[in-house]
Amino acid sequence: MRESEIIGLFLKHLKRQGDLPLGDDAGAIRLGNEWLVATNDMLVRKTDVPDMMTPEQVGFKAVTMNVSDVAAMGAKPVGFLFSLGVPRDVGRDYLESIAEGIERALEFYDVPVLSADTNEADDLIIDGVALGVAERPLTRSGAKPGDLVCVTGDLGRALAGYLVWRKGLEVLEKTRKALYEKFLEPKARVREGIKLSGIASSAIDVSDGLAKELHLLAGMSGVKIELSSESLPIREEVLEVAGLVGRNPFELALSSGEEFELVFTVEPEKAPSLDFDFSVIGRVEEGSAVYIDGKPLPPLGWEHMEHMNVY
Amino acid sequence: MRESEIIGLFLKHLKRQGDLPLGDDAGAIRLGNEWLVATNDMLVRKTDVPDMMTPEQVGFKAVTMNVSDVAAMGAKPVGFLFSLGVPRDVGRDYLESIAEGIERALEFYDVPVLSADTNEADDLIIDGVALGVAERPLTRSGAKPGDLVCVTGDLGRALAGYLVWRKGLEVLEKTRKALYEKFLEPKARVREGIKLSGIASSAIDVSDGLAKELHLLAGMSGVKIELSSESLPIREEVLEVAGLVGRNPFELALSSGEEFELVFTVEPEKAPSLDFDFSVIGRVEEGSAVYIDGKPLPPLGWEHMEHMNVY
Repeated sequence: MRESEIIGLFLKHLKRQGDLPLGDDAGAIRLGNEWLVATNDMLVRKTDVPDMMTPEQVGFKAVTMNVSDVAAMGAKPVGFLFSLGVPRDVGRDYLESIAEGIERALEFYDVPVLSADTNEADDLIIDGVALGVAERPLTRSGAKPGDLVCVTGDLGRALAGYLVWRKGLEVLEKTRKALYEKFLEPKARVREGIKLSGIASSAIDVSDGLAKELHLLAGMSGVKIELSSESLPIREEVLEVAGLVGRNPFELALSSGEEFELVFTVEPEKAPSLDFDFSVIGRVEEGSAVYIDGKPLPPLGWEHMEHMNVY
Repeated sequence: MRESEIIGLFLKHLKRQGDLPLGDDAGAIRLGNEWLVATNDMLVRKTDVPDMMTPEQVGFKAVTMNVSDVAAMGAKPVGFLFSLGVPRDVGRDYLESIAEGIERALEFYDVPVLSADTNEADDLIIDGVALGVAERPLTRSGAKPGDLVCVTGDLGRALAGYLVWRKGLEVLEKTRKALYEKFLEPKARVREGIKLSGIASSAIDVSDGLAKELHLLAGMSGVKIELSSESLPIREEVLEVAGLVGRNPFELALSSGEEFELVFTVEPEKAPSLDFDFSVIGRVEEGSAVYIDGKPLPPLGWEHMEHMNVY
């Protein structure tokens, strides 16, 4: 069974959900005047971790991927939990480095660990959970016609870094460094998420590629999104790799996953109060689906790219 | 590496902890006037699930083991999260039954699911997380000399049920039913935990056997615990199995794990305000370690029992 089928099977049975229905970056319940948001993400080494990642980077990423979902809800992260599945052949040094990576991430995001568990398993697994608190949770369903579509940071470096590694592309050390930083040690946009809470109309983090996230946002908000390819924030290192592999750089930017940038929608008059850098990449309109430069944009993502033999 | 070594390794590195140090049934942080408690527990089919358990029972238990840790903190469960590791050879029917078991438990405990994730893995894994809210969290470190030592329900049925199954013991259908109910579908003591919050001085749930839990409680509270074997709540079905396998029934009651009863300490004058059934099984005194009928009690548990070839 595919992951999406398994999720569908469980959603059919799990009727008792929180104060927000399942389907956002995190779940949420009201606690007094605030909202508690909670999310979990299981990392399995065999399928989720490129060989070249150090165990410290693996530990760091297990925290980042969960904290990013809390940030996408406009919440301040307040706690992290994790379970470790440990195969017999994993040694002490490897585990110790994972612990160091987790601790470094907890310091970086200023989040305490609340609980941890370990168990023997056939795969190395880190199942992380992040908790956060928000005055008002940001969802994927609040985008309104007239809103701007925006994104933090830049797009495409994670996938470009993967291609450099996988295809052994020869690039300048400076280029490799800029790409690997995002490919191997992406950071969650915590400060931006908290700021967006009172201002944005919707948000989502880029886990599976911008195109897929925008399709989710448009679908859950019941709107159409119009992107402008010229506005996509793409760094020259991504252009360089696109040239080397003979691909369209926009395609790399639209399908690159695990970027952990925040995509959000905001009323034009509210945008100036955001005190961090971001790019306006499009507009929300009446209708449905996602368009780029006036043409329909397919939900490109990792799976799609694999199908297209980009890897 | 043993689980305890792995935990030690991580504790060495994880300096950024919650408002209670790690080491209780759950972690905790202050949220406004309340405390948020959070706990996680990974269930791996190969090592944690007897073959005879139905997938629905597996799903139910994944919720119970986490909710029980929240109850042991004197907290009301407010949310459940889970990650599923799914091997390729696990079919749709098995997964659907797990979903049904999880939903039945969520209804039983009146807890919503806040987030779920799934991933391909070599083992079938359910990593559950329970969140709870308490005015004042109960810890393992608050037992004081003079307190009564108490336990909810009865002890030993989980292990006796395991022995009936594993050794194919011939018992009456009534006996089997009473034992399997506890062995295969133990329930967490949620109502009792909430009530204990303002009244008990310490609490812990029986996950690894009463003797082990009392050693933890005595050690973390810096006290001595004196048990009276005659006061242990042991049902006749456990006596019957003890006779069949030629073991001391007290030993079964003291080492039976995954009972999910709550052990707690309470000042004698506060005990009458508890509006549920429980047994007084001993006293807290000045000193250290655990004694039964005046003799030192070893920290018997599943591991110990295996060593003694009880299984």
